[in-house]
Amino acid sequence: MLIGFEIDYKTLPYSRRERNLVTQTTNGRGPKIRDVALHAGVSTATVSRALTDPASVRPALRDKVLEAVKALGYTPNAAARSLRAGRTRTILVVTRKRWSAPFFSEVLNGIDTTLARAGHAMILGNFDAGDRREEEIIDMMFSGHIDGAIILSGIAADTGTRSMLDAGLPIVSISAAVAGTLAIVTDEGESIVRLADHLLDGGHRRFLYLAGPLGNYNETVRWAALRAHLAGRADATLARIEGDYTMPAGIAAAKDFLAMAERPSAVVACNDEMAIGFMKTVRAAGVAVPGAVSVAGFDGIEFADYCEPTLTTIRQPRFELGAAGAETLLKMLAGTMALADGPVRLVNRLRLADSTAPLGAG
Amino acid sequence: MLIGFEIDYKTLPYSRRERNLVTQTTNGRGPKIRDVALHAGVSTATVSRALTDPASVRPALRDKVLEAVKALGYTPNAAARSLRAGRTRTILVVTRKRWSAPFFSEVLNGIDTTLARAGHAMILGNFDAGDRREEEIIDMMFSGHIDGAIILSGIAADTGTRSMLDAGLPIVSISAAVAGTLAIVTDEGESIVRLADHLLDGGHRRFLYLAGPLGNYNETVRWAALRAHLAGRADATLARIEGDYTMPAGIAAAKDFLAMAERPSAVVACNDEMAIGFMKTVRAAGVAVPGAVSVAGFDGIEFADYCEPTLTTIRQPRFELGAAGAETLLKMLAGTMALADGPVRLVNRLRLADSTAPLGAG
Repeated sequence: MLIGFEIDYKTLPYSRRERNLVTQTTNGRGPKIRDVALHAGVSTATVSRALTDPASVRPALRDKVLEAVKALGYTPNAAARSLRAGRTRTILVVTRKRWSAPFFSEVLNGIDTTLARAGHAMILGNFDAGDRREEEIIDMMFSGHIDGAIILSGIAADTGTRSMLDAGLPIVSISAAVAGTLAIVTDEGESIVRLADHLLDGGHRRFLYLAGPLGNYNETVRWAALRAHLAGRADATLARIEGDYTMPAGIAAAKDFLAMAERPSAVVACNDEMAIGFMKTVRAAGVAVPGAVSVAGFDGIEFADYCEPTLTTIRQPRFELGAAGAETLLKMLAGTMALADGPVRLVNRLRLADSTAPLGAG
Repeated sequence: MLIGFEIDYKTLPYSRRERNLVTQTTNGRGPKIRDVALHAGVSTATVSRALTDPASVRPALRDKVLEAVKALGYTPNAAARSLRAGRTRTILVVTRKRWSAPFFSEVLNGIDTTLARAGHAMILGNFDAGDRREEEIIDMMFSGHIDGAIILSGIAADTGTRSMLDAGLPIVSISAAVAGTLAIVTDEGESIVRLADHLLDGGHRRFLYLAGPLGNYNETVRWAALRAHLAGRADATLARIEGDYTMPAGIAAAKDFLAMAERPSAVVACNDEMAIGFMKTVRAAGVAVPGAVSVAGFDGIEFADYCEPTLTTIRQPRFELGAAGAETLLKMLAGTMALADGPVRLVNRLRLADSTAPLGAG
C-alpha cells in the first residue's frame, strides 16, 4: 500500500493473455522465455534462474523447465547474454501515448540528462503503440539488452508491467506508484488540498473538478484528496466532469459548464492543459476569469505562465522527477539503493497567478 | 546543395578533435574502431570493411588496418556483431537539447509511432548532454547496436554527425538538410514568403524578425527567404533581434521592441514560442495585438491556438515529419530507397488567426 493506491494483479486476465501470446510469439518468431514458462507452468523468473543459476532452483522445477526448453526448441540468445554480462549501459523508459505532452517531455529531459552524465543511453518504449510493441519491450527486458527500466505512466496496473517485473531487473516508476518498483512521486494529495484551501479562503464554496482518465494514478490520488477535503466542509459542493488531460477535453468541459443553471465559482482541473482549454472557451463566451469563475490547474507546465490569464497551478518539479528517477535506478544497479528505500517523495509548490481571485472580487 | 544551405565539413577541426578522442577512449576503456582508423591513417569505414569484407579493400590498406589492430590490441565486439547480423531492429534518434520542446516532441511522437508499428525500438541520444555522451552515441553506430539513425537537429554541421556518417549506416535527417543523409524537410522558405505576403497585403511595411540561434538550419533558411523577399520591396524595412527559440527570448525581444523610437508594425518570429513570449510581454505593457502590432510565429504548435490572441503561424506537419522520417529510414534499410531519392519535402500551411490584422485595422 503506497499513498493510498493499491494494484491488485489478481484481478487481471493474465493467464488468458499469456496463452494468446504463445500463439503469436511461436508463430514464425521462435519461442521466447515466456513460452517456456507457460509450457513448464512456472514463472519466467524461474526459467531464467533455472538456465543461469540451476542450483538455485528445486530439481523438480528444473526438470520441468528443461523439458519445456527441449519441447519448444528454445535457445537463449547467446549474444544478448554476453552483452548483458558486460552491462549494456542502456535503460529502457516505458511510456504511454502522452509522453510528448509538456509534463512528460520535461520529465524525460531530466531522465535523459542524468543518464547521459552517467554514460548511459535511453531506449524509449511506448506501450500504447500496440500489442506487438509491448511484446518487443517485454522481450527486451528478458534478452539482456537493458540494465533496468523506468516506467513513466499513470496507468500502472497492466499485464505489460507485470511481465516486466517478472524479468527481475530493477525498475523505477515516476509519477506513479507501481507495486514491485521503486516509486518517485510528489505530494499530489497534499498539494491539491493546499490549492483547495486557497480557494476556500477566497470564499469559494461551489467547486467543479475536471477529471483525468479513470484508472490513472495521478487522477485517482488528486480526486480522492480533493473529494475527502471538501467532504469535510458542510457548505461546499463538488461537481465533476470527465476528461482525458487534453486541451480539447478542457473545451468540452467548458461547454458543459456554460450550460449549467447554477455555475460553480471555482474550477480545479486535474492538469494545466485542461484548465487552459477551459479558460480559452469560457472567456470566448464572455465569462470573465477570474471575475466570474476562478480556474486552477495542476503540473505547472511552462505555458501556464503564458496563457491568458496566467494560471494558478501546482508546480511539480518535472525535471527533478526525471533526474531523481534516473539517479535512483543507477543506485539500484550499483547496489546502493533497494526497493525498501522507496518511495522517494518530492515536494510541489502552489503557484498563485491571475486565474484565481476571491469570490466576487475578480 | 539543398534549398540554399550547404555544409562544409572541411572547415571543421576534425583531425584535432579525433586526436583528442584517442587519448580519451584508450584511457581505460579499450581501443575503439576510431582509434584503429587514426592509427592506420584511414577512415573508420575502411577499418570496418577491412574486418568484415576484406576482399573489398586494397591489400595495402588492409595490411595497414591489421597492423593497427595488432598494435592497439583491438578486438571487435563479437556479441555486438552477432546482434547486428540478425538486425537489431533498433533505431538511434539523435537530438539536441530542445528535443523536449513542443515542435520536436511531436516529431518524435511520429517517429516512435511509425517505428513501433514496424516492430522497431527507438534509442534517444542527446548530443548536447556532453562530450562523453556524444562518444557513446558514436560508438553505438560502430558497435552494431543499431540499424540506422535519424538526426533531429537544426545544428547540422558538427564532428559528431561527421563521425556518425563514417559508420556507413543509413541516416535520415528531419527538419534539417545534413550532407550525406536523406533529408526530410518542409517548404520553409516558401512558407515564410507566403506569411510575409499576407502581412504586405495588409499594408505592413515595417517588419521585425525574431531570430533563432545562428547556424541553425531552420533559422538560416527562414531568415534568408524573408530577407530576400522583402529586399525586393523598396518600401519595406526589416529589423532583426537575436533569440534562441524560447519564450524568455520572446520576452527579451519584446523589451527591445518597446524601447524602439519607431516600432515596426509586423513581427515575424522564427518560432511560435518566441512569438507567444513577445505577445504576452507587449500586451502587459499596454500594446495591443494586433491593434498596434501584428505578430506571427512559425511551426504551428498546439498552444498557438490557446494563447491570447490566437497566433497566426506556419503550421508544419510535425507528426508527419517524424512518420515520414521513420518510414524513409525503414525503406533505406529494406533497400527500396536510397540517398538519391531525397530530399523528401512536405508542405506547410499558413494558419491565419487573431494575432495579425491589416495595418491600422486591428
